[in-house]
Amino acid sequence: MSEAMTISVLGAGSWGTAVADLLGRNGHGVVLWCRDPGMARHMESSGRNPRYLRDLLLSPNVRVTSDLSEALGASDLTVVAVPAQGVRELLRSSRSACASPRRWLNLAKGIEISTGHLLHRVFEEESPGNRYSVLSGPSHAEEVALGLPTAVVIASEDPQEAVLWQGLVNSSRFRVYGSSDVTGVELGGAVKNVIAIACGMARAMRMGDNSVSALATRGLAEISRLALRMGADPLTLSGLAGIGDLMATCFSSNSRNLKLGMLIGSGMGLDQAKAELGQVAEGAFTAQAIRSHAAWWGIDMPICEGVYRVLFEGEVPRRLMEELLCREPKMESLT
Amino acid sequence: MSEAMTISVLGAGSWGTAVADLLGRNGHGVVLWCRDPGMARHMESSGRNPRYLRDLLLSPNVRVTSDLSEALGASDLTVVAVPAQGVRELLRSSRSACASPRRWLNLAKGIEISTGHLLHRVFEEESPGNRYSVLSGPSHAEEVALGLPTAVVIASEDPQEAVLWQGLVNSSRFRVYGSSDVTGVELGGAVKNVIAIACGMARAMRMGDNSVSALATRGLAEISRLALRMGADPLTLSGLAGIGDLMATCFSSNSRNLKLGMLIGSGMGLDQAKAELGQVAEGAFTAQAIRSHAAWWGIDMPICEGVYRVLFEGEVPRRLMEELLCREPKMESLT
Repeated sequence: MSEAMTISVLGAGSWGTAVADLLGRNGHGVVLWCRDPGMARHMESSGRNPRYLRDLLLSPNVRVTSDLSEALGASDLTVVAVPAQGVRELLRSSRSACASPRRWLNLAKGIEISTGHLLHRVFEEESPGNRYSVLSGPSHAEEVALGLPTAVVIASEDPQEAVLWQGLVNSSRFRVYGSSDVTGVELGGAVKNVIAIACGMARAMRMGDNSVSALATRGLAEISRLALRMGADPLTLSGLAGIGDLMATCFSSNSRNLKLGMLIGSGMGLDQAKAELGQVAEGAFTAQAIRSHAAWWGIDMPICEGVYRVLFEGEVPRRLMEELLCREPKMESLT
Repeated sequence: MSEAMTISVLGAGSWGTAVADLLGRNGHGVVLWCRDPGMARHMESSGRNPRYLRDLLLSPNVRVTSDLSEALGASDLTVVAVPAQGVRELLRSSRSACASPRRWLNLAKGIEISTGHLLHRVFEEESPGNRYSVLSGPSHAEEVALGLPTAVVIASEDPQEAVLWQGLVNSSRFRVYGSSDVTGVELGGAVKNVIAIACGMARAMRMGDNSVSALATRGLAEISRLALRMGADPLTLSGLAGIGDLMATCFSSNSRNLKLGMLIGSGMGLDQAKAELGQVAEGAFTAQAIRSHAAWWGIDMPICEGVYRVLFEGEVPRRLMEELLCREPKMESLT
């Protein structure tokens, strides 16, 4: 573990809160930015997040503020923990609030729906010239907050940058591996949420673990095909940021995207399911963005495409499952 | 689906029973060999297996016999569904009982502990000159018996042989993909049982889904390293016979090997856990065989090695989990 630093964490949802606490327990000074002033005051005085991870008493090294300039002024080391669709707006606000150079660590997983961009491109566009790393892998916030063992990947095009963040985040309970494959790590983290929605539907229809395993495996093949075409290393998808995260998402009761799929699979429409869920399920956005990518790159992605049709074009989930799981395969090699 | 044939199925455990029924429902005539004469008579008269899958009423196309010569005489198409450690003995008895040429489809997953051989080598040695295929993938017998959707792989060095079996086994609910990578498919099916034991230990200690996902992902890396060295295609391990089966085994309550790991993780010794389980958990054998392979090929397989130490050398499960999940990684790339 490296020497104690000061680190800003932007976003006090469940993941931002868990990582702020983790960094605080690692001995770093953390300034956690929470958009809502009342909630920030509550967290600062009580040491607890009233909405997420309520049982977690934050490390005393974590200070909470709703003043973005204050959070950004505390350090150039800046962790971004807002939903994917909010990243661009946050980066714009950050540039207005504080112009100094930054070393970003992005925790958001997803694809920006308005542009179809992976998030490293959003950072490039809104924070040009600044260093960028991304953290991904099987890491339910609830378990990290409990101090349960977790292993993740930090990827950066600049190996020194990945090593810097590894040193800051790594601990005996939160093990960080390094990678240089930013595109592969981001794609794995984004697309798995769509596959998880499909697995949730199968689960709601009681189609069994064989079905969910087959869906997740074929889902991995879809992600890998796209990743390869987009210049990523397919091996990344066989690692923690690919299959690791996919497993944790498709088989864990803690996954929001799986839950969304279960609600849809049990007959709810998207709006009702979102309302029932309360939190953002990123996969619904990603399904839209990935559809354009698949078409652009000419990649066959039947699971992602099917989830899109169910969510946005009224296809019946049972029909999709029949198509994905019960159509006799052609006599061709696909293992 | 191909025309109706007669097929022998040797072994009336849960998997042999489920596949015999599946073939019967596909319209084939099936002769199911059950070693125990009393049990065979019971199954033949009642259409039910008194020990496994008791709710399943067998297809009327399935006939049951305890006479091996009769079963083998019915067809050259022969499915082997006995535990891995019993395969050699069954092949020897089969040769004595009926000398005609065979087309084998092996359903057993594991490594022969007395020789360290993968099963295709056992078939080569005991049934030389005969054609061989192997079926593997995420396929809990309980779910196949219920007619829930399942996808598997059949591998053979002879593509025509794989296509033949695909045509016999394939249905809308049991989808069969083809492969030529016998070694990769067999290794995936064998080693995943050892990884599942480790995941069961983590589960019994309530280490969370992040931990189980990290173990399974690192387990896949171990299997892939060994597979590559043994001449298999690493891509096979990213498919149904690799990660697909691993997921179904590590996350499903139907997995015997996961259950064995959970019993061990909750403090039982191996003998007591085996007694409690009742059925064979192949992973305990595989852990022994794989240890020799890893040493022979010079492959680092810390999870398999650790499971061996816990099962046979008295290492405390908690200590293994600490070592596997809580040791700070070196600052090196491993995603």
